[in-house]
Amino acid sequence: QEAVCIFGTGDLGRSLGQRLLQSGYRLVYGSRRPHICGPIPPGAQVMSHEIAARSASLVFVCVHREHYDFLETLAPHLKGKVLVDVSNNLKKNMYPEANAEFLQRLIPGAHVVKAFNTLSAWALQNGPSDANRQVYLCGNSPEAKQAVAEIATKLGFNVQDRGSLSAARELEDFPLQLFPEWRLPMRLTIGLTAFFFFYLLARDVIFAYVDQGKDNSFRIMVSLANKVFPIVSLILLSLCYLPGVIAAFLQLYRGTKYKRFPDWLDRWMLCRKQLGLIALALASLHVLYTLIIPIRYYVRFRLAANTISQIKENKTFVFDTTMGWRTDSYYSMGILGFGLYLLLGIASLPSVSNALSWREFSFIQSKLGYLTLFFCTFHTYLYGWDKFLFISYYKWYTPPGYMLCLVVPSVVLLLKLLLLLPCVDKSLTRIRQGWE
Amino acid sequence: QEAVCIFGTGDLGRSLGQRLLQSGYRLVYGSRRPHICGPIPPGAQVMSHEIAARSASLVFVCVHREHYDFLETLAPHLKGKVLVDVSNNLKKNMYPEANAEFLQRLIPGAHVVKAFNTLSAWALQNGPSDANRQVYLCGNSPEAKQAVAEIATKLGFNVQDRGSLSAARELEDFPLQLFPEWRLPMRLTIGLTAFFFFYLLARDVIFAYVDQGKDNSFRIMVSLANKVFPIVSLILLSLCYLPGVIAAFLQLYRGTKYKRFPDWLDRWMLCRKQLGLIALALASLHVLYTLIIPIRYYVRFRLAANTISQIKENKTFVFDTTMGWRTDSYYSMGILGFGLYLLLGIASLPSVSNALSWREFSFIQSKLGYLTLFFCTFHTYLYGWDKFLFISYYKWYTPPGYMLCLVVPSVVLLLKLLLLLPCVDKSLTRIRQGWE
Amino acid sequence: QEAVCIFGTGDLGRSLGQRLLQSGYRLVYGSRRPHICGPIPPGAQVMSHEIAARSASLVFVCVHREHYDFLETLAPHLKGKVLVDVSNNLKKNMYPEANAEFLQRLIPGAHVVKAFNTLSAWALQNGPSDANRQVYLCGNSPEAKQAVAEIATKLGFNVQDRGSLSAARELEDFPLQLFPEWRLPMRLTIGLTAFFFFYLLARDVIFAYVDQGKDNSFRIMVSLANKVFPIVSLILLSLCYLPGVIAAFLQLYRGTKYKRFPDWLDRWMLCRKQLGLIALALASLHVLYTLIIPIRYYVRFRLAANTISQIKENKTFVFDTTMGWRTDSYYSMGILGFGLYLLLGIASLPSVSNALSWREFSFIQSKLGYLTLFFCTFHTYLYGWDKFLFISYYKWYTPPGYMLCLVVPSVVLLLKLLLLLPCVDKSLTRIRQGWE
Ligand SMILES: Cc1cc2nc3c(=O)[nH]c(=O)nc-3n(C[C@H](O)[C@H](O)[C@H](O)COP(=O)(O)OP(=O)(O)OC[C@H]3O[C@@H](n4cnc5c(N)ncnc54)[C@H](O)[C@@H]3O)c2cc1C
Ligand SMILES: Cc1cc2nc3c(=O)[nH]c(=O)nc-3n(C[C@H](O)[C@H](O)[C@H](O)COP(=O)(O)OP(=O)(O)OC[C@H]3O[C@@H](n4cnc5c(N)ncnc54)[C@H](O)[C@@H]3O)c2cc1C
Ligand SMILES: Cc1cc2nc3c(=O)[nH]c(=O)nc-3n(C[C@H](O)[C@H](O)[C@H](O)COP(=O)(O)OP(=O)(O)OC[C@H]3O[C@@H](n4cnc5c(N)ncnc54)[C@H](O)[C@@H]3O)c2cc1C
Ligand SMILES: NC(=O)c1ccc[n+]([C@@H]2O[C@H](COP(=O)([O-])OP(=O)(O)OC[C@H]3O[C@@H](n4cnc5c(N)ncnc54)[C@H](OP(=O)(O)O)[C@@H]3O)[C@@H](O)[C@H]2O)c1
Ligand SMILES: NC(=O)c1ccc[n+]([C@@H]2O[C@H](COP(=O)([O-])OP(=O)(O)OC[C@H]3O[C@@H](n4cnc5c(N)ncnc54)[C@H](OP(=O)(O)O)[C@@H]3O)[C@@H](O)[C@H]2O)c1
Ligand SMILES: NC(=O)c1ccc[n+]([C@@H]2O[C@H](COP(=O)([O-])OP(=O)(O)OC[C@H]3O[C@@H](n4cnc5c(N)ncnc54)[C@H](OP(=O)(O)O)[C@@H]3O)[C@@H](O)[C@H]2O)c1
Ligand SMILES: CCCCCCCCCCCCCCCC(=O)OC[C@H](COP(=O)(O)O)OC(=O)CCCCCCCCCCCCCCC
Ligand SMILES: CCCCCCCCCCCCCCCC(=O)OC[C@H](COP(=O)(O)O)OC(=O)CCCCCCCCCCCCCCC
Ligand SMILES: CCCCCCCCCCCCCCCC(=O)OC[C@H](COP(=O)(O)O)OC(=O)CCCCCCCCCCCCCCC
Ligand code: HEM
Ligand code: HEM
Ligand code: HEM
Repeated sequence: QEAVCIFGTGDLGRSLGQRLLQSGYRLVYGSRRPHICGPIPPGAQVMSHEIAARSASLVFVCVHREHYDFLETLAPHLKGKVLVDVSNNLKKNMYPEANAEFLQRLIPGAHVVKAFNTLSAWALQNGPSDANRQVYLCGNSPEAKQAVAEIATKLGFNVQDRGSLSAARELEDFPLQLFPEWRLPMRLTIGLTAFFFFYLLARDVIFAYVDQGKDNSFRIMVSLANKVFPIVSLILLSLCYLPGVIAAFLQLYRGTKYKRFPDWLDRWMLCRKQLGLIALALASLHVLYTLIIPIRYYVRFRLAANTISQIKENKTFVFDTTMGWRTDSYYSMGILGFGLYLLLGIASLPSVSNALSWREFSFIQSKLGYLTLFFCTFHTYLYGWDKFLFISYYKWYTPPGYMLCLVVPSVVLLLKLLLLLPCVDKSLTRIRQGWE
Repeated sequence: QEAVCIFGTGDLGRSLGQRLLQSGYRLVYGSRRPHICGPIPPGAQVMSHEIAARSASLVFVCVHREHYDFLETLAPHLKGKVLVDVSNNLKKNMYPEANAEFLQRLIPGAHVVKAFNTLSAWALQNGPSDANRQVYLCGNSPEAKQAVAEIATKLGFNVQDRGSLSAARELEDFPLQLFPEWRLPMRLTIGLTAFFFFYLLARDVIFAYVDQGKDNSFRIMVSLANKVFPIVSLILLSLCYLPGVIAAFLQLYRGTKYKRFPDWLDRWMLCRKQLGLIALALASLHVLYTLIIPIRYYVRFRLAANTISQIKENKTFVFDTTMGWRTDSYYSMGILGFGLYLLLGIASLPSVSNALSWREFSFIQSKLGYLTLFFCTFHTYLYGWDKFLFISYYKWYTPPGYMLCLVVPSVVLLLKLLLLLPCVDKSLTRIRQGWE
Repeated sequence: QEAVCIFGTGDLGRSLGQRLLQSGYRLVYGSRRPHICGPIPPGAQVMSHEIAARSASLVFVCVHREHYDFLETLAPHLKGKVLVDVSNNLKKNMYPEANAEFLQRLIPGAHVVKAFNTLSAWALQNGPSDANRQVYLCGNSPEAKQAVAEIATKLGFNVQDRGSLSAARELEDFPLQLFPEWRLPMRLTIGLTAFFFFYLLARDVIFAYVDQGKDNSFRIMVSLANKVFPIVSLILLSLCYLPGVIAAFLQLYRGTKYKRFPDWLDRWMLCRKQLGLIALALASLHVLYTLIIPIRYYVRFRLAANTISQIKENKTFVFDTTMGWRTDSYYSMGILGFGLYLLLGIASLPSVSNALSWREFSFIQSKLGYLTLFFCTFHTYLYGWDKFLFISYYKWYTPPGYMLCLVVPSVVLLLKLLLLLPCVDKSLTRIRQGWE
């Protein structure tokens, strides 16, 4: 079997080498100091760059871009060989040209392929569990790409060809990305959270201070948090399902599915998963905040004070069955809603969603998703009950938070109901089947 | 590199094309209206069906079955080519013959292969995360199947050959399945839940109404739910472990492991995972229902009423250490049981169970599983305590629910204990090692 | 297509055969009793060992090692063929030589390859979900290994070559391993738990008994558990982040990253994931134990007793805002800390961490991890508040548990703060970039 060569005995060189050896390749390292370099995987040989380059037709350059100049002197030995550039940068746009293009310019006679840079040394070392990782590659020579793709496949990776070397910049930006698809949903969440926080701060704390001179500020930590989080969660949840409804009406209106959606709708649709998961995280916080209510000092104080005042004033309260039904029902709705919420979350774990057929996945995410939305909305309605009738709840003429947050979910549920009417449903199905 | 051809520029055609291009294939589309068709992935060409067919030896037919007739006129150009049928139907048994067989009959000169129909356009577009998806294929020509299998492998899928074209119907039914393995456990769950719901409704609500004219109906939402769910959960959990015990006794009785189990036992064994997960879901609901107990209006009312009556009657209760031990113990058992329950659930996530060796998996599922069952059963015994001694708990001569639900788990644990006796264990191990 | 042969129609033989057939192989079984053997997968043929061996060049020996002797008589027919040894043992070191080496010695003319033994019959049968499983192989003949590797790849496995047949023993030990990487963290956990259990038992139960003759033993089940678990969890969490800090200081001190870390540090770093997950499990238990506080008999008793004594002594307590702030704050910190904790846990599920880029993963595990540690530490400080000032908390001159557990986290956070100082950070980054 022919050998492959790795330049550089650093972290990546070592890890990559180990995997290559495990998959049965013969391996030579090229190093500045062949005799005093660090520990290399057993089975490999270390030589000077020149000799190493000669003994293989494919060379992984596992050296930082800053040190590429030494390659220039090796150019004659690298002619016609495949050079794999694996390098990354610390920041975007650090250099005017992509590292791989720089390398190609340095050694025009070699076939440079950009690949493997999205993997980490760590991931390479821990083979098995990362087996379904993707390797992206690009380069100008199809044969060179083919050779690299073969190695990657043998190491257990899936290969994705990204075209010519001009795509190298894009590939080099991949490892620098930090949750690009989460950015929009995250911003929305922060915006909504900030809005509701100040809105409720004004109503619950500042109002009490201005109106009655009472210091309610300690409510910020739990009571306020336990309003802001569920409110934002419910809104985000409904925003997961709004675009689907809008899309349906758009298709109905256009009478065809073959026209593209407007850009904003497309982008919105693509971040529904993220919206949903953030909503789940906030709902989880709501649940935890709710469950610690009874151990709060404030709550215990109030309950004791109530009991004492009942005794002192010698009143006897009777049990209010409606109240019993109402509170138990809204807890129950909340719990069932949260259970389904969790189920949606579990079903969106990559390994679970991969095990589901498309129909099963959309049964959970779409059907059970609407059910979740329904339970959560109903929970909030039952919690609100008849409070909207009493003027005292409209402090400074503002409606309470839960009322505001019910608007979008109610609209979404109503529109969905419309779409479920047999006649509408039928024509929608026809359109989605491709009829025009 | 040779080109592949796709007929139809719809959702699936587009997504499949994109993946093919990414993996380095050359691609031509065949379309009814080559010039005005929707957006196609950059790098592909669109032509009329005829010209497109000529330039490739493999054609993906990404068109609904209803429109296949246009292919008949193309028959001469499709002779000897591989036709990949990717189509699905809306319902089972919509047509007398499978789509792929229909296609083969339409163009007898082509080699029809059924494949890719279990993937969705969406899954194809979102490559990486679905990399470990399965592609099933069937067809009459081994070479044609080989060609399709190669493409599928290059796209990063695992291929499973299902034999000749007569298996096409089966493959077409795959995407229409909705959780087939969950059906039996689900039915069992619904049956048990309904039974215990009405049983406990009679005991807890109707009895009170008939006997004392008291309206306890509000208890349905939380108190009743919080009995039905854990009871059914415990029974389902024990039903996970019962078949293993039965199997062991059967093997002991038969003295060999080489005889097949009766069918019902086999089917039961195959749905233990589902049984277990449903049991976990119900247990989670039990925990949530339990944790909201202290914020219930009814509970607060009762506690305040208790305190008030203590004062009014000027009684002083002393702290009952046994009661303290007992209640704390049963909570503790419940919590530990639930923790292990969660662990079993986590270990059955596909990505986690894949990372475990067989011995590790069965350590968690079998050893820790029995421990879970033990904790949960013990929790319920401690909860019941000496209530079974008092006649007042047997309303209408029926035992309370938790007593009923203890039967199966107790039997399972007892039988398992028997199997752990050294002499029994030894002969069982011998049998399972293949001795006869 | 050439046939493959399987000796033995037992569990593994059957399952392996089924998968081979599904992937398009032709299959013959060799059996002692070809006519009365158990159910074999449809499509395969069963023959006597001799005839079966003749019709294929590759034979899977799916028979227990104890019965290998029958192979000796077949030696002439197995000459030059590839024999795949799949066998496992019940215990480590059961036999002086590895099964595969024994087989090779038995039939010197064959090319023995050890492979597939880490899979279970069950995993083979349930193909799709195990697609990313690893197959390890070793053997002396590269061609024979290549042949087996090809089959394994076609069945959808990733192959890892482990070298010559002398590695067989190692491969045979794999399926017998039981969580080797969890051993060290587990021992640490048990040690810490035992220490704190007895420490707190002495302080909370024995002290009360000795000092006031009060029987507090019922506190063991919940109160004590709810101290031991969070304390150990917090310590384990900080032990996850301590080695990273030590490593950084070591690198700073050495001025290079190219020297290996001492062995203990390396081993410590490799078990951080396990430490973290155990810490998460204990934190989950803490949360559950905390949430049931208000339904405990003891707590209800105490609260009622308090209220009653308030009335009897006719005192009126005023609401203490500081107390309100403090308790609400520490709950809030705990909840946020636990939320992030869960996030760390979710991100370490194999399927999730595989979907993350290296930078994303380390953002969650390192940045958010430190945030988690900060929240949890702050939670504990707020819980402790000014208790350390009062001598009555130092029973028997020992500090309370939460004070002890704050030492390591505080040190870790302090050291990390030091590392974040711009000057230190800059030189560390340079070192990690490879400068010397
Ligand atoms: C906890 C949680 C987890 C979630 N996880 C996920 C997840 O993993 N993945 C996920 O996708 N969503 C996820 N979501 C969001 C949401 O549940 C799903 O998107 C859900 O499928 C939306 O259902 P729907 O019926 O509105 O949309 P759909 O069933 O998608 O229907 C919407 C309409 O839009 C059309 N359409 C959809 N996409 C496109 C497109 N790209 N181009 C053209 N037309 C299109 C459909 O044909 C249809 O007309 C999650 C939500 C929550 C709360
Ligand atoms: C939350 C939760 C999650 C669960 N997840 C899973 C899961 O992911 N996967 C899963 O399998 N179970 C799952 N279960 C169910 C259960 O825990 C396991 O099935 C468990 O292994 C049963 O243990 P056992 O000792 O009874 O069975 P086993 O260890 O399987 O032993 C039973 C006996 O049957 C024999 N046997 C088993 N299967 C067969 C067969 N097909 N043909 C012939 N003989 C056979 C064995 O040799 C043995 O004799 C889950 C349960 C819970 C509560
Ligand atoms: C719930 C939970 C889940 C967790 N899951 C995981 C998990 O899945 N995977 C995981 O790794 N950790 C996990 N952890 C542990 C911990 O969060 C991470 O290890 C975290 O990355 C440590 O951050 P750090 O900044 O200290 O370390 P790092 O960012 O690793 O930095 C530490 C220093 O050590 C160096 N270094 C690291 N590894 C090596 C090495 N092998 N050889 C030489 N130098 C090295 C780095 O260059 C750096 O100098 C988990 C923790 C918790 C609480
Ligand atoms: N580490 C990762 O996880 C990772 C992931 C993806 C991509 N990469 C990329 O892989 C490359 C190597 O990264 P690394 O982490 O392995 O770096 P590293 O550990 O710092 O190793 C770099 C190696 O390059 C050689 N080298 C250093 N200075 C040199 C010089 N002046 N001239 C010639 N050779 C020199 C050294 O090898 P010798 O002493 O043997 O000469 C050194 O071990 C970088 O481009 C990086 O962006 C790394
Ligand atoms: N979408 C999925 O997720 C999915 C998954 C698995 C299988 N499938 C199967 O794939 C096939 C295509 O599905 P799809 O979702 O892509 O459908 P689609 O979006 O409706 O596209 C169908 C395409 O077929 C062509 N077509 C329509 N009417 C035609 C006619 N009368 N004659 C010739 N061509 C016609 C059109 O392409 P031109 O305008 O270019 O001619 C059209 O774009 C179906 O059989 C479906 O069952 C789809
Ligand atoms: N089961 C697993 O999950 C698994 C996993 C990894 C490795 N393995 C290994 O695979 C091998 C087979 O395991 P298994 O579970 O399939 O065992 P099994 O079910 O007991 O089957 C063993 C087969 O070997 C044949 N056999 C038994 N005694 C024999 C004898 N004296 N002479 C010749 N053949 C005899 C029998 O086949 P005929 O009646 O057809 O002759 C029998 O069906 C073992 O080495 C085991 O360690 C098993
Ligand atoms: C309705 C109330 C729900 C309450 C919460 C339920 C949690 C467990 C429910 C599991 C349902 C899994 C459906 C998977 C669909 C499927 O077919 O999935 C099929 C897949 C693949 O199966 P195969 O590998 O057998 O093909 O199976 C699974 O993925 C199993 C998923 C296990 C999930 C366990 C999750 C543990 C974490 C739980 C956290 C709970 C926190 C509770 C707080 C109080
Ligand atoms: C006993 C009390 C348990 C309480 C709950 C524990 C939750 C966390 C425990 C994790 C244990 C993982 C064992 C995996 C076995 C293994 O070796 O697994 C090995 C695998 C693979 O490891 P490699 O990739 O390193 O090979 O590791 C994992 O899969 C990590 C699993 C992480 C699981 C995190 C789950 C987060 C969800 C938690 C929900 C909790 C809800 C709580 C409600 C109050
Ligand atoms: C801060 C408070 C957090 C509270 C708990 C949050 C739970 C849900 C948060 C999900 C966050 C996922 C981040 C994944 C990062 C990523 O980019 O991940 C990216 C991946 C891959 O995405 P693609 O497949 O789209 O590439 O997405 C995921 O893996 C989705 C993970 C879903 C996790 C759901 C877990 C359900 C179990 C919840 C148990 C909760 C118990 C609560 C007890 C009260
Ligand atoms: C275990 C499940 C749940 C329980 C026990 C629960 C309980 C409660 C309680 C007690 C309140 C009143 C809080 C207060 O007095 O300030 C409340 C309010 C609310 N809940 Fe839930 N809930 C649950 C799940 C959910 C879920 C999944 C959602 C969906 C996002 C949700 C949305 C809301 C909303 C919007 C409010 C109103 C907030 C306000 O303005 O006060 N709840 N819930
Ligand atoms: C966090 C863990 C748990 C806690 C705190 C807990 C607590 C409780 C409580 C308080 C009750 C009495 C309910 C009532 O008064 O009506 C109860 C009953 C019961 N629990 Fe749990 N439990 C836990 C976990 C479990 C688990 C995992 C199971 C297993 C399935 C279980 C099974 C039962 C059963 C069968 C009953 C009797 C129901 C009845 O008839 O009233 N519990 N539990
Ligand atoms: C939902 C989140 C949490 C809540 C509601 C919570 C609540 C509490 C409460 C009420 C206590 C006092 C217990 C007692 O009186 O004995 C406590 C103590 C403590 N908590 Fe948490 N906690 C949470 C999460 C965490 C987390 C994630 C950690 C990190 C490991 C943690 C660490 C501790 C520690 C070390 C103590 C002191 C234990 C002692 O010595 O008494 N907590 N927590």
